[in-house]
Amino acid sequence: MREVLKTDNSEIEKIIDYLLISSGKMLRPRMVYLTASLHPHDADLLRDMAVAIELIHLASLVHDDVIDRSQMRRGRDSLNKLWGNQRSVLTGDYLFATAFNLINEHNCRKVMESVSTTIQIMCSGEIKQLAMLFDTEISEADYYEKSYRKTACLFASSCKVGALTANMSAKEVSILEQFGLCLGYAYQIIDDVLDFVSESSLLGKPAGNDLLQGNITLPVIFAMQDKEKGSWIKHVIQSKTLSSETIPLLVKILLETGAIYKSIEVSHLFLKCGLKALDKFPMSPAIQELREMSLFLMEDYYKKLNCQGIHDRRPLSGNIH
Amino acid sequence: MREVLKTDNSEIEKIIDYLLISSGKMLRPRMVYLTASLHPHDADLLRDMAVAIELIHLASLVHDDVIDRSQMRRGRDSLNKLWGNQRSVLTGDYLFATAFNLINEHNCRKVMESVSTTIQIMCSGEIKQLAMLFDTEISEADYYEKSYRKTACLFASSCKVGALTANMSAKEVSILEQFGLCLGYAYQIIDDVLDFVSESSLLGKPAGNDLLQGNITLPVIFAMQDKEKGSWIKHVIQSKTLSSETIPLLVKILLETGAIYKSIEVSHLFLKCGLKALDKFPMSPAIQELREMSLFLMEDYYKKLNCQGIHDRRPLSGNIH
Repeated sequence: MREVLKTDNSEIEKIIDYLLISSGKMLRPRMVYLTASLHPHDADLLRDMAVAIELIHLASLVHDDVIDRSQMRRGRDSLNKLWGNQRSVLTGDYLFATAFNLINEHNCRKVMESVSTTIQIMCSGEIKQLAMLFDTEISEADYYEKSYRKTACLFASSCKVGALTANMSAKEVSILEQFGLCLGYAYQIIDDVLDFVSESSLLGKPAGNDLLQGNITLPVIFAMQDKEKGSWIKHVIQSKTLSSETIPLLVKILLETGAIYKSIEVSHLFLKCGLKALDKFPMSPAIQELREMSLFLMEDYYKKLNCQGIHDRRPLSGNIH
Repeated sequence: MREVLKTDNSEIEKIIDYLLISSGKMLRPRMVYLTASLHPHDADLLRDMAVAIELIHLASLVHDDVIDRSQMRRGRDSLNKLWGNQRSVLTGDYLFATAFNLINEHNCRKVMESVSTTIQIMCSGEIKQLAMLFDTEISEADYYEKSYRKTACLFASSCKVGALTANMSAKEVSILEQFGLCLGYAYQIIDDVLDFVSESSLLGKPAGNDLLQGNITLPVIFAMQDKEKGSWIKHVIQSKTLSSETIPLLVKILLETGAIYKSIEVSHLFLKCGLKALDKFPMSPAIQELREMSLFLMEDYYKKLNCQGIHDRRPLSGNIH
């Protein structure tokens, strides 16, 4: 990534260097690599496509932090906190352009199409989401569409890009895309659950941060369906009277009504669905690795639920492997 | 453009509709059209490439307005004023992605390369410029580099894209690129002059707005070289004591030291250089149209100097045609 982002411009290089220090989980490029490894492929091409996908993801994170006015990212000051919105918007644009340039160098038309369409879906989705903030009429279907645009479509695109890079058949590309899609949903749902009940949400950033910003996620949608407590939740959201003081009460309701457990269950179902897609491939070390990556990733996520005593009550627990 | 930007998302469509109402001068797509018209070409392909170039330009304007916190664009409320920074950043990203998608549909690899490289140059240039604000050490060379990154490179790319679309030879592509480059410099310089002395700068937005923001342009660089007045100008810039009250005095100095006239002269030289590049083509109606477009564009710009009594003292006046 450093090599691709090399410029003769010390200003932007400083910013990019800072960005590359905390590299995150590199989930999406990992998916590109693992899916491509199912077939023979060109190693240099694969590396560049994985880099391009991570650049797109990084660019969207940088712009998201401007949009959300976030002060922190990956445990450090966000770019916009350190360098301001101006440089952050420009750095994001620069990263997008670099990714496109890299894909174009290899003349990967289908990759280009998948990636540019994904960005269109992500951006228009985020604008749509802004219009839905604090709207308690949001349905489960709205939530899944939101999650698709926010997370699942880039997961799906990452797997598709890996498959395309290794010249797989249309059917194989489609299966791997489906796998990425399901994993993306599973991941986003748990991420939304953790916003209420993770250890870090209790110690670090305020629990219920999403909801305080008006972003209504699956656990809340489930809880709003509760006959007894639903109307109270709708009321505090609509009246914007939620605060970090009332969040613990809300979390209690999310647990009591089963909304948290039900969300975890849905996440599990998506994970299972993704793994099932992989069954369409004959078993191989590469398929095994892809399964393990998914399980490891999600287990790691589920573990963060431990401290709440939620772990033991996990539905479906143990029947995924 | 409307057709390409059609989505099933009413939120982003509202924003884009607003953006498309005031279409500006459409300079860059016009350059794509006129350069391509020198050779036989596919009309649909040309239309889409011209649209892509304008989308890139629009995206950069939308992001620029976020960056500069501009309240006005093309005589109306800016997107960020009306819809906020969040939607503006996302709309810009959406426009970029749509442009790339469109170019990719036609599999125009060289166009893609030119456009993505241009965006990289523009973004990294703008970041560099931010670091140079209020820096009175700025040289003429720095200014030309800044103008290249800000304006001339997209002008050059627009002409290159037109030439590529019409399958011209490498030599022809290069000549037209050179033409666009020169026109871009000429245009940017006059734009910077007009910031001090145009009618609108006296009636509408504050004169010297660029300099108040720390952006030091060619007339100021020339004036800073003046033995008598140079140090005063440097002082007010460095101490950031410039205000809309002292700008009239500064403009007076820019006129008295000849800095304004010298800048206009340089703009003329670039225009002549651009027209000279066109001489390498045999005369044809298409070449004639390209010349006329340049002259008309620049004349229109020079006319705005009239009210200041600058028009009559224009150097080189009349010897361009």
